[in-house]
Amino acid sequence: MPLPEKALIARIRKATKTRAPSVVAGIGDDAALLKIRPGYEVLVTTDFTLEGIHFRREWHAPQVVGRRCLTRGLSDIAAMGGEPVAAFLSLAVPRKLPQTWVDGFMKGLLELAKEFKVALAGGDTAESPAGVLADILVLGSVPRGKAILRSGAGPGDAIYVTGELGGGAAGLRELFAGSKLRSRDFARHFHPVPRIAVGKILRTRNLATAMIDLSDGLSTDLAHLCEESAVGAEILATQLPTAHTGRKRQPVDQDLVLHGGEDYELLFSARQSVHLPPKIGGVRVTRIGQVMRNRRILLRNEDGSVERLEPKGWQHFASSGTRGDTS
Amino acid sequence: MPLPEKALIARIRKATKTRAPSVVAGIGDDAALLKIRPGYEVLVTTDFTLEGIHFRREWHAPQVVGRRCLTRGLSDIAAMGGEPVAAFLSLAVPRKLPQTWVDGFMKGLLELAKEFKVALAGGDTAESPAGVLADILVLGSVPRGKAILRSGAGPGDAIYVTGELGGGAAGLRELFAGSKLRSRDFARHFHPVPRIAVGKILRTRNLATAMIDLSDGLSTDLAHLCEESAVGAEILATQLPTAHTGRKRQPVDQDLVLHGGEDYELLFSARQSVHLPPKIGGVRVTRIGQVMRNRRILLRNEDGSVERLEPKGWQHFASSGTRGDTS
Repeated sequence: MPLPEKALIARIRKATKTRAPSVVAGIGDDAALLKIRPGYEVLVTTDFTLEGIHFRREWHAPQVVGRRCLTRGLSDIAAMGGEPVAAFLSLAVPRKLPQTWVDGFMKGLLELAKEFKVALAGGDTAESPAGVLADILVLGSVPRGKAILRSGAGPGDAIYVTGELGGGAAGLRELFAGSKLRSRDFARHFHPVPRIAVGKILRTRNLATAMIDLSDGLSTDLAHLCEESAVGAEILATQLPTAHTGRKRQPVDQDLVLHGGEDYELLFSARQSVHLPPKIGGVRVTRIGQVMRNRRILLRNEDGSVERLEPKGWQHFASSGTRGDTS
Repeated sequence: MPLPEKALIARIRKATKTRAPSVVAGIGDDAALLKIRPGYEVLVTTDFTLEGIHFRREWHAPQVVGRRCLTRGLSDIAAMGGEPVAAFLSLAVPRKLPQTWVDGFMKGLLELAKEFKVALAGGDTAESPAGVLADILVLGSVPRGKAILRSGAGPGDAIYVTGELGGGAAGLRELFAGSKLRSRDFARHFHPVPRIAVGKILRTRNLATAMIDLSDGLSTDLAHLCEESAVGAEILATQLPTAHTGRKRQPVDQDLVLHGGEDYELLFSARQSVHLPPKIGGVRVTRIGQVMRNRRILLRNEDGSVERLEPKGWQHFASSGTRGDTS
């Protein structure tokens, strides 16, 4: 294999030296070998992170790209009420990519992995014909029959969301506008946190009837949840927890709250009789609406008017007319 | 998401309709949910298939690319003595790719999946900035403690290989030379078969001490096995099973036998006292050498001379000076 691959493998191998108890054998064999606790089922999720589609090298530091890459997978495990066990990284880089970029990417990814006690247990490397291509696989586990699916919402259930909405997309909008951003002013964009702890608490206490993570935007992900549960929903515009961004901590526009992607918060339903605290695992939880038998998805505005909430969620960079020109 | 993704997802969803018993929930949720048999460990392997690196659209029909994509993952599971449980496909395609290409790719992949009773249980889709990008994940299982690792070879063990060698690379060499090939004349290149059955028999009968699949070429993969086992080896040139290709079924050159990649045969070691039949699971098995305590890897020629067998294996298309110009 070409030299960049060897260097990559060396780096990934080094990253996997501290073997997790669940990983019997990792890199250095044909496949990774993992133990799953008796009575548990396996969760598997894979997510692309492609240069020019999900990030741009001139906008995103390599640490940010690495962190966001793993966040996507961990957030999916959180949305099932699961616990992450191991991650696998498939990474293809162009021949001329500076080694420091790969180092930064791995640093960001591994810091998050350490934070959530996830072993990096393998993957693949290749030379990329164009741009950085990453595919992250996260394997998790959940007690048998206890995963929180998208399909369990019933009419009358209350709808909740964790954290605040629109912060992920607000950073992206500013980047498209040509702004230079301080990452601390747009933390949800540059430093997203997967809601593993919240998901686990909801599962262990049997609080949620259905759940999904907000990666594509509230309107689109709510539509997914409603479709799988064969229900509709009514959302109260006044109840939506709005992110505040920028130096002045200003509230983001409502269209970002409704349709902005990559917040990696959790959207879930719970029986109306269940009483939820205002915070779960230290994270704010807000009731934003109700599940309806009628399969339409509606938004009730402050003035009492009601409109259809069309799924207009995340289309990555492709929607912005400037796609694919960064690789 | 852009339209090609929706079409892709619809196709992949359709492909996953026939739910395997091991798959509790597949596409349509945040993560796939899988059952693993009690007493079994989980095997995980991921492999890129990148246009311009692993295939070329003008050389390889989409069915061939799809089949080879999944073969890479199944072969890794075979090399652990495991049984495949589920596959996950991450696929990014350029906006202008004809839908018929994706259909052909899925057809080739799903035919092989059906042959080996592997469920396609999920994945990810995206728009690709350049060329077709696939990452295949195969999840398998193996009884606890029974996986055949690369690290178990001991001095004195005999070294075996399944099938014939050099056929995969022979097809590639002809393609580079500008030849039009009939796929039946180069079956190992266009229609590789992962050795799942052989791997399982070797595992259930406790026949192999170490095993690896031949994806990078004998010289390179033998070096991997020896490195992980901390041993050396002596290979007998006269004993190597040589593939025959082309209309006239001519033997391929020795350099392809020694260094050609993508044969997807199994290389394994067995105690000298173990008597192996000439065929296992209908596949020819040939003794080609011996594991040595001294960590050098040697090739003994017909005239009795001995030379170092340097790892000169598979470098994909990158080694041929014509890389990356097809996307």
